[in-house]
Amino acid sequence: MDVPQHQRFKLLGLSGSLRKASNSSAILRTLRDNLTPDIAMEIVALDDIPPFNEDHDTGDGPAPVATLRRAVRACDGIVIVSPEYNHGIPGHLKNAIDWASRPGYDGPLKNKPIKIMTIASSPLGGARAQAWLQEVFSSTLSRVVPGKQVIIGAVESKMKDGKLAHEDTLIFALNSIDEMLDEACLVQGRAKRVIPDAWKRRKLDKPPR
Amino acid sequence: MDVPQHQRFKLLGLSGSLRKASNSSAILRTLRDNLTPDIAMEIVALDDIPPFNEDHDTGDGPAPVATLRRAVRACDGIVIVSPEYNHGIPGHLKNAIDWASRPGYDGPLKNKPIKIMTIASSPLGGARAQAWLQEVFSSTLSRVVPGKQVIIGAVESKMKDGKLAHEDTLIFALNSIDEMLDEACLVQGRAKRVIPDAWKRRKLDKPPR
Amino acid sequence: MDVPQHQRFKLLGLSGSLRKASNSSAILRTLRDNLTPDIAMEIVALDDIPPFNEDHDTGDGPAPVATLRRAVRACDGIVIVSPEYNHGIPGHLKNAIDWASRPGYDGPLKNKPIKIMTIASSPLGGARAQAWLQEVFSSTLSRVVPGKQVIIGAVESKMKDGKLAHEDTLIFALNSIDEMLDEACLVQGRAKRVIPDAWKRRKLDKPPR
Amino acid sequence: MDVPQHQRFKLLGLSGSLRKASNSSAILRTLRDNLTPDIAMEIVALDDIPPFNEDHDTGDGPAPVATLRRAVRACDGIVIVSPEYNHGIPGHLKNAIDWASRPGYDGPLKNKPIKIMTIASSPLGGARAQAWLQEVFSSTLSRVVPGKQVIIGAVESKMKDGKLAHEDTLIFALNSIDEMLDEACLVQGRAKRVIPDAWKRRKLDKPPR
Repeated sequence: MDVPQHQRFKLLGLSGSLRKASNSSAILRTLRDNLTPDIAMEIVALDDIPPFNEDHDTGDGPAPVATLRRAVRACDGIVIVSPEYNHGIPGHLKNAIDWASRPGYDGPLKNKPIKIMTIASSPLGGARAQAWLQEVFSSTLSRVVPGKQVIIGAVESKMKDGKLAHEDTLIFALNSIDEMLDEACLVQGRAKRVIPDAWKRRKLDKPPR
Repeated sequence: MDVPQHQRFKLLGLSGSLRKASNSSAILRTLRDNLTPDIAMEIVALDDIPPFNEDHDTGDGPAPVATLRRAVRACDGIVIVSPEYNHGIPGHLKNAIDWASRPGYDGPLKNKPIKIMTIASSPLGGARAQAWLQEVFSSTLSRVVPGKQVIIGAVESKMKDGKLAHEDTLIFALNSIDEMLDEACLVQGRAKRVIPDAWKRRKLDKPPR
Repeated sequence: MDVPQHQRFKLLGLSGSLRKASNSSAILRTLRDNLTPDIAMEIVALDDIPPFNEDHDTGDGPAPVATLRRAVRACDGIVIVSPEYNHGIPGHLKNAIDWASRPGYDGPLKNKPIKIMTIASSPLGGARAQAWLQEVFSSTLSRVVPGKQVIIGAVESKMKDGKLAHEDTLIFALNSIDEMLDEACLVQGRAKRVIPDAWKRRKLDKPPR
Repeated sequence: MDVPQHQRFKLLGLSGSLRKASNSSAILRTLRDNLTPDIAMEIVALDDIPPFNEDHDTGDGPAPVATLRRAVRACDGIVIVSPEYNHGIPGHLKNAIDWASRPGYDGPLKNKPIKIMTIASSPLGGARAQAWLQEVFSSTLSRVVPGKQVIIGAVESKMKDGKLAHEDTLIFALNSIDEMLDEACLVQGRAKRVIPDAWKRRKLDKPPR
């Protein structure tokens, strides 16, 4: 389908886990591959982001940081899929956010819509990491889109062949990205996004768990 | 003064900031240099800890991680001095804790007494990072010692010549380390630490702020 | 000045402290008395809200709850001024929010813009209560307006004759209410609020502390 | 079995829900009825605790508060079973803690061992309420016992005839109370509790979920 440029959306996808067989990364790719044709998602890997050191925060920062910051600036919204480590945000993901947050109160994350999705092997689904990510993004003056949280527990049971295979969870997550784009339009003063009938998905009243 | 081996204590000091002129690191050094003769503190730098990646967590982990884990295992307690980044724990510090926490529920941090000190330029003193560090260490089954929190706001005004120069703050922080050692003795089933009169400091009822 | 009906805003003010000489309540009254002529604030006292009990949540709830819920529904935004109790939200304030939140995901708080202000005698200013209020309002799908937080430490020094007398703090807090009203207009699809020059205040780049 | 007085323990049980058919209260009663013969648990209802108001905090406080404070003082440890409301602590439970916490840093909760158990209909099990309760009890200088958390999700499926009927969950919860009593002995400088073989239960490596 041919979508005119001004109706296109660009998302940045960040995974909170670096291991090769990461479920977070796999879910991010599944989402990317199932977005409607007006949305493109670029996934930026965080493997090479160095530990934040203010002494090295000159210009746009070390190369991998500069790449991340450019991607944050260029996107209409950020989708994060992350596990929970030790009841909190994986350190390296928080570290990437720390780099992206600068300068304080006026960094590339300011006013940026964010959709957080957390996952876990346990049924808890990373609920605490979700809470802390929200607080972190309030400090960067970002916009965590109000809406039911995407919290995916027992994640292994929902994956198949390296993809998110649990249909309700996929639909719920994709719908939540649509909500984020509505917020992006609102914030950018852009016309409300119109979704053709052919792209529409089932609504799910409750987060599937 | 000559302290017999069995009355000695070994602390691990971790700084939450990597910049050269870091106030956290400076405070940690000031504490180390003012401990009573029965306590030694080793400060381990976190600059070279790579981002946590489960694929690389074999054996005792990458060399800087193995060093950190050994230091955690060997110490009687950990002193953390850290700024707050984006209302939370600096990412690289959380990342170091993530490495040290493994394997889950049974890593080197288990049962380890911890004293958290947070600092900030603002009067808020990193109170939220303090809260989240506590929660993280509950997940590692560590022992954040019950006691009044060391929260140092307006930190620049309390430094002089690269040292913590605010006497009440220094005494309060050192006393809180003594409380941690009492906890260490309790947990280790070790005789209660006896502090000679010559080493005693003023008590401060309230955290200086 | 004569403001036409459709350009008027109605705020609900909630105080997190019940004592007679409460600084939270005094600040709320000072804000109310200094709002621009297009804004009216109704302060609803929480003294008579009973402890939440699902068995009693029939119809619109017990009378004081019904009053609170009506006020939430009728307002364009909520201003909360609250102390921090035990590193968290005062229980009775959380209890009032629990009543107002029902039914889950679809209560009167849904989509409602919220401005949280916390205060403390200590310099910490209730930063943790602020964080937790934000998380609570994410669960009610409310809109905590992105912006620099209003955190008022050493509050006694800023009060005089039962009023908030610290000018920068007052201006900063009033400006943050203006930001909330911009959000309210956005969410309601209402024309952007226009503020006559005569009503304009100084901008403050940084929260006064 | 006849247990000498000095080997007896007294627990205080608090439920975070007030409704008649509350699962929290039912679980608390199931625990009480399955404790070993050396432990007695008194359950104190929180229905009549008024909203905290410093003006009314004279003497030992209003009658229901005085009762609560006496029970806190008299016990060897507190067991809390609570749902999560709006991603946090039920307001009325927090309100009861606020009353019990006074005077600050030196109230009846100081040094008191605490075992927190959270429940939920959803699989998340109240994980966030658990986290915040921990933080609150750090401010009261209480001792939340280090150990795997008791987080009971999908709670309805684990109840039968008004009792906690899921055996692994019951055993795990009871074992965690034993851990709390070991902590109580440590803190009180009391001889380690000896559990006769006849009272011993299965150990569970992982929290049942």
